[in-house]
Amino acid sequence: MNEVIKQLRERKSVRIFEDKVVPDAVKNEVIAAAFEAPTAGNMMFYTIIDVTDQKVKDQLSVLCDHQPFIAKAPLVLVFLADYQRWYETYRAAGLAVRKPAVGDLMLACADAFIAAQNTVVAAQSLGLGSCYIGDVLENCEQVRELLSLPEFVMPATLVVYGYPTRQQLDRKKPVRFGKSYIVHENGYRKMEPDELLGMHCERGDKESIDALCKRKYLSDFSIEMNRSVAEYLKNFSSR
Amino acid sequence: MNEVIKQLRERKSVRIFEDKVVPDAVKNEVIAAAFEAPTAGNMMFYTIIDVTDQKVKDQLSVLCDHQPFIAKAPLVLVFLADYQRWYETYRAAGLAVRKPAVGDLMLACADAFIAAQNTVVAAQSLGLGSCYIGDVLENCEQVRELLSLPEFVMPATLVVYGYPTRQQLDRKKPVRFGKSYIVHENGYRKMEPDELLGMHCERGDKESIDALCKRKYLSDFSIEMNRSVAEYLKNFSSR
Repeated sequence: MNEVIKQLRERKSVRIFEDKVVPDAVKNEVIAAAFEAPTAGNMMFYTIIDVTDQKVKDQLSVLCDHQPFIAKAPLVLVFLADYQRWYETYRAAGLAVRKPAVGDLMLACADAFIAAQNTVVAAQSLGLGSCYIGDVLENCEQVRELLSLPEFVMPATLVVYGYPTRQQLDRKKPVRFGKSYIVHENGYRKMEPDELLGMHCERGDKESIDALCKRKYLSDFSIEMNRSVAEYLKNFSSR
Repeated sequence: MNEVIKQLRERKSVRIFEDKVVPDAVKNEVIAAAFEAPTAGNMMFYTIIDVTDQKVKDQLSVLCDHQPFIAKAPLVLVFLADYQRWYETYRAAGLAVRKPAVGDLMLACADAFIAAQNTVVAAQSLGLGSCYIGDVLENCEQVRELLSLPEFVMPATLVVYGYPTRQQLDRKKPVRFGKSYIVHENGYRKMEPDELLGMHCERGDKESIDALCKRKYLSDFSIEMNRSVAEYLKNFSSR
């Protein structure tokens, strides 16, 4: 197994960090990895907000479903899907252009997530743990105000980074579903109820599907995320 | 510089491949890297379609803005944002649940892109080039039919992989924009027209903003992508 694949295997989400600053040189390496990521047409449809102000971290930790570990993370980056920069560049060049639409937003999201994952991979190689916070999609109005987001920008994700505690290093990586459920050949394979229930049983999750559904799908944060994303989408026309 | 960061730097998109099969062991390593990627709540909101049928590759190459190199790629994976599997799992467990909404779709897209980028990183370490094809977002109706996509599934991206030709290996990686334009501190920094035009000038792109706009933003594929994504979104409620 080569070093890259070894590191991808070893990487797991880390939420609790040592009380230790991430040196600028390391942070710069992490951010530089985003720039090395593939990006649609070399256009970089994303912006990274480097959150250095403790007050902003504190507010984000509240707005992202009340997760105090966000406020304690030494490095916090928000990856924004950004069509604003190009829309305004076109206008700055004197071009009469349409407004960004939902397909443009999807391309921008792609760029943002792909860049984010490169930083996560780089971080791991530098001894830094990391965790994605999808909850930055919630509370559109307050997040927009806090981060001064313009019209054609949506936060794609937030990532926290830091040096993992011993307890976090010792934690087991969660077991994924079997390949047969996730990889299909030449077309989507619909599964029957028995197979779907088997998929969940097979990996031995302690949580029942009922409990998982309540916690992840019918929960307040999930309802709020859907409302909030719909708000962001309103700025992007559907053609 | 460590090996992982070195590889992230060296990786650039490759569209032209040697006429050489990707051995199953290598393909399995690439796909396994997707499974190692972080995924929201360990739920794996994505499905990977492994396109092995030449007829399906041929059709995808037409549907993805007529790019014949897709049909020639030895390995073609489509990454689907998939809320269908969980929606049906909840129902299989006898739960009365709401239908997936736009926030759920965004989380699923995150999972799909993050998994895709892990495969791209792994591929590079195994000597395989790769290229993202965002155009799989176009032609919703035909792509749905071709890949039998159910209601709550949207293709996030398609990636082609193969052994790079010498000419592709020798190609220079495109220059990215400067960090000051892309990384902002604590909040979004709006830029004035002069700075935006400077951003483009600075990296010395041969193509004018006007030409780029026509090719990337006002072009048929871009209009079609917006229409098509809007179609996919129709199945996801806005709350």
